[in-house]
Amino acid sequence: MCENCKINPIITVSNIDYCQRCFPKYFERKVVKTISKYKLIEKNDRIGIAVSGGKDSFTLLYLLSKLYKNRPDIKLVAIAIDEGISNYRNLTLLKKYCNENNIELQIYSYQEEFKNTLDDILKIKSPYKPCSICGTFRRYLLNKKSRELELTKLATGHNLDDEAQSIIINQFRNNTNRGIRLGPITGIIDDPKFVKRIKPLYFLTEKETATFAYLKKFPIEFSECPHSFEAFRSEVRDLLNSFEEKYPGTKHSIINSFLETLPILKNFHEQSEIKVCSICQEPCSQKICNTCKLLNELNIS
Amino acid sequence: MCENCKINPIITVSNIDYCQRCFPKYFERKVVKTISKYKLIEKNDRIGIAVSGGKDSFTLLYLLSKLYKNRPDIKLVAIAIDEGISNYRNLTLLKKYCNENNIELQIYSYQEEFKNTLDDILKIKSPYKPCSICGTFRRYLLNKKSRELELTKLATGHNLDDEAQSIIINQFRNNTNRGIRLGPITGIIDDPKFVKRIKPLYFLTEKETATFAYLKKFPIEFSECPHSFEAFRSEVRDLLNSFEEKYPGTKHSIINSFLETLPILKNFHEQSEIKVCSICQEPCSQKICNTCKLLNELNIS
Repeated sequence: MCENCKINPIITVSNIDYCQRCFPKYFERKVVKTISKYKLIEKNDRIGIAVSGGKDSFTLLYLLSKLYKNRPDIKLVAIAIDEGISNYRNLTLLKKYCNENNIELQIYSYQEEFKNTLDDILKIKSPYKPCSICGTFRRYLLNKKSRELELTKLATGHNLDDEAQSIIINQFRNNTNRGIRLGPITGIIDDPKFVKRIKPLYFLTEKETATFAYLKKFPIEFSECPHSFEAFRSEVRDLLNSFEEKYPGTKHSIINSFLETLPILKNFHEQSEIKVCSICQEPCSQKICNTCKLLNELNIS
Repeated sequence: MCENCKINPIITVSNIDYCQRCFPKYFERKVVKTISKYKLIEKNDRIGIAVSGGKDSFTLLYLLSKLYKNRPDIKLVAIAIDEGISNYRNLTLLKKYCNENNIELQIYSYQEEFKNTLDDILKIKSPYKPCSICGTFRRYLLNKKSRELELTKLATGHNLDDEAQSIIINQFRNNTNRGIRLGPITGIIDDPKFVKRIKPLYFLTEKETATFAYLKKFPIEFSECPHSFEAFRSEVRDLLNSFEEKYPGTKHSIINSFLETLPILKNFHEQSEIKVCSICQEPCSQKICNTCKLLNELNIS
């Protein structure tokens, strides 16, 4: 029974039952707390919201809009990337939602930026996996466009499950240095060329976010990307779900253990030099950024 | 085929086949390398070797004795703990082995130190698990006796699997601070009351150690402790074995990721104050050490 309303619960979180009226309140409180504790959004911030049309980004868009639409000092812009994936990426419902809710939406496409759709790019033979190519291009574009829009931060819909999986994947593959991309607020280097990423849903699980999106009846596209098949991540997801079921709190422990070492890790990596790509002038860690390297190897620019 | 001898291999490690003559050489080289890289044993060291009579500690005893018995500046002493567990702890074969190989062996018992055998202690009702009680007493006794023997370091038989499991267990239970007990050489605090622990088998897997012990025909006791049932550890063991089988190198990645953050972790914890137990004067992190707390709670001292 929901402790507050004494009616049938729809979800149980940390041994507390919530009904369909109380759960969204709990969810919102947790997002507000995360934003405040980690200073994700502050006075005069200009926030980009990375949106795909899925449950996580709709939840993020809805909540940030609800929390900040009446704040004259805070600007919000939704940013969508059209990779060019036929029978999958369709931003119609998202456009309609933003339009009806008076949210500015900016759409950028691989076609326009890289002269090719992702479908085209993946026809080129290469040793790289689709998600690796697409991720590199997406991060590049999001950072570049956020900066052009003069945003101070870019919010993404990553939830606790996404983060716990990434921590384990980095660990099982010995990619410790990628850890600095994680955490509720990233951007190790205080460089105006790097727009900080923030994750307001950081402490909410996949299940909680899905329940919230379901209750709010967001116009979500449910199709799956035809190129995406991340075998390793899905095995890690299964392993974490099975441990969580047997030992509740496992995912939170992974996150909290990680957060304890993160400041030390960041401090350690902060000494690394900031460079600028000699081709595109975007910030990167080597002479040439990963995007320009890829474009060059794929011979598409 | 063994690359060197062109005969049937008995084990494959990192895609290299080894026959029964070449594998022990590879194993020894790896132990020598670990000792040298992490400065586990240095000139004039007085080394205790924690032995139980199992495969790991026999391997350790054999190798350290082989490597250092002719070094006049290095002293070796085997140390066994007799917990008092009937139908299990039997040190007869170990005593015989040490005697035949001229290795000094010191045996200490819970009965003598705590006036009770472990079997007795576990008859007392308490909220603690057998392995937790026994581990606290064992660590206490090993440190105290090593210091009384004026040892500079204490070697234990922990292998790569033990370590990878401990890393994951600490992470899944959010016990980050226990991480400072891990690594090839531990003892964060340069305090003469803490005898440093060293793990020469650190980079060798369970399977490699078992194969080495089998080839060397050590007189191992194979019975299992009747009190020990670590459900969580055995689930973590299964999970790591299944990932290792599918993605070879996973366990090494976990170890290496951990070792990258360990120096930062140690540095961070080094600031913590060293205290002395107000009851027994042994070193500890609080006013009273865990052993005295336990003895008091169990009302056995």
